[in-house]
Amino acid sequence: MKFLRFKINGKKKTGILNGDSITEIKGSMLEALNSKQLEKAGIFKLKDVEVLPPVSPSKVVCVGLNYRDHAKELDMKLPTEPTLFIKPSTAVVGYGDDVIYPEDSTQLDYEAELGIVIFKEAHHVKEEDAADFIGGYTILNDVTARDKQRKDIQWTRAKSFDTFAPIGPCVETELDPTNQNISLKLNNELRQDSNTKHMIFNAYKLVEFISNVMTLKPGDVIGTGTPPGVGSMQVGDMVEVSIERIGTLKNVIKA
Amino acid sequence: MKFLRFKINGKKKTGILNGDSITEIKGSMLEALNSKQLEKAGIFKLKDVEVLPPVSPSKVVCVGLNYRDHAKELDMKLPTEPTLFIKPSTAVVGYGDDVIYPEDSTQLDYEAELGIVIFKEAHHVKEEDAADFIGGYTILNDVTARDKQRKDIQWTRAKSFDTFAPIGPCVETELDPTNQNISLKLNNELRQDSNTKHMIFNAYKLVEFISNVMTLKPGDVIGTGTPPGVGSMQVGDMVEVSIERIGTLKNVIKA
Repeated sequence: MKFLRFKINGKKKTGILNGDSITEIKGSMLEALNSKQLEKAGIFKLKDVEVLPPVSPSKVVCVGLNYRDHAKELDMKLPTEPTLFIKPSTAVVGYGDDVIYPEDSTQLDYEAELGIVIFKEAHHVKEEDAADFIGGYTILNDVTARDKQRKDIQWTRAKSFDTFAPIGPCVETELDPTNQNISLKLNNELRQDSNTKHMIFNAYKLVEFISNVMTLKPGDVIGTGTPPGVGSMQVGDMVEVSIERIGTLKNVIKA
Repeated sequence: MKFLRFKINGKKKTGILNGDSITEIKGSMLEALNSKQLEKAGIFKLKDVEVLPPVSPSKVVCVGLNYRDHAKELDMKLPTEPTLFIKPSTAVVGYGDDVIYPEDSTQLDYEAELGIVIFKEAHHVKEEDAADFIGGYTILNDVTARDKQRKDIQWTRAKSFDTFAPIGPCVETELDPTNQNISLKLNNELRQDSNTKHMIFNAYKLVEFISNVMTLKPGDVIGTGTPPGVGSMQVGDMVEVSIERIGTLKNVIKA
């Protein structure tokens, strides 16, 4: 099922996406996942609504180098443990929202990523139990001010500007995170094209590793790293990240 | 004024601390700061209550090397810009709460810090306007798994374990953040002893710098870096961070 949040006539709603049609449901996605029966409330056309970020994470926990093919491209050794960084909740925007190019930045890069959406509070979770804590999967563009990342010791500034964490358009609840095509187009030109099977640490391992450090809250998102082909965006560019069976996350860069 | 949050008979309350006495007020600290008149609701003895973290930040934004005397101790050049990292909200605990020594860590360090408490949403704030966005100041112990910090490229894991951000006991609304003594005792032995006047980037500059990257929300806390004398803690140790005119933040290390 594809859960999404949307706005119509000034009201925020939750629904299930079927092609171009949305079936509104009562309650939030997290509540719906907890209940056996969905209470349906209305039907809308996707083209008539404003798509919102599918969840409101308290934090987005991201992983550095996590694709074998990307490590090869960079001629880097494979890491023995995931490298973590945090994007704050204030960086989150949704499908169709603008990504703002920071005034004092000189290089803004895209990074296509599979996003894990946490469903229930996760603390010291084992890899084999991780699926129980995952509500579904979304798409994340881990937008990065590469000039700042190069300058700073820490990646936090480069990754944390407002609008630097577009997520969406929906959360797909039934997905094998270990084998999905992931790609990115910049102005309709293919720039990244890989498969989540090339991850060094898969979704379940990441939930184990991260939840052994910090408690993950319902709605929190984990960014699982990006495949090869990372590059820069300019003001006016349209960036589209697609993951098989989830959909396409589209954003435009604004000054 | 010293605002604190506390629990008595299972109920969470907000109050103003005067010596050993708390005057309960209606509403939250942020609401009280917005209203001209405080509605008083009851009097309690400090010894009878459980002190809670004074705010519930959506994030704790911290700064690396930010004391001239600490930079000298480490024989490091003074930075030209603050180095940022984020501690997640899940790391926050209060006065008297245990700090949990992670099972797979081998070195747990204390770092005494002045904490800035944001009062209203701050986005692209200028240094000269920063005071308007600051509700007050608290104490932060920036607990760090130093072995993880050394191993990882990024500091996030080392700084983000649950309980690694003790804050409190109160928020002092009237304080000059540029000239206060700050000290830390480990098991009653003085380990850090400096003054916030030695900061490289003062509180107002930090609000400007950080709010130009990410929006700061009411209740968010900024950790302003630690003075010389950083060292390690063992299970059973009692750590006390004191800042002139705010008070003392006490925590014990547990396995």
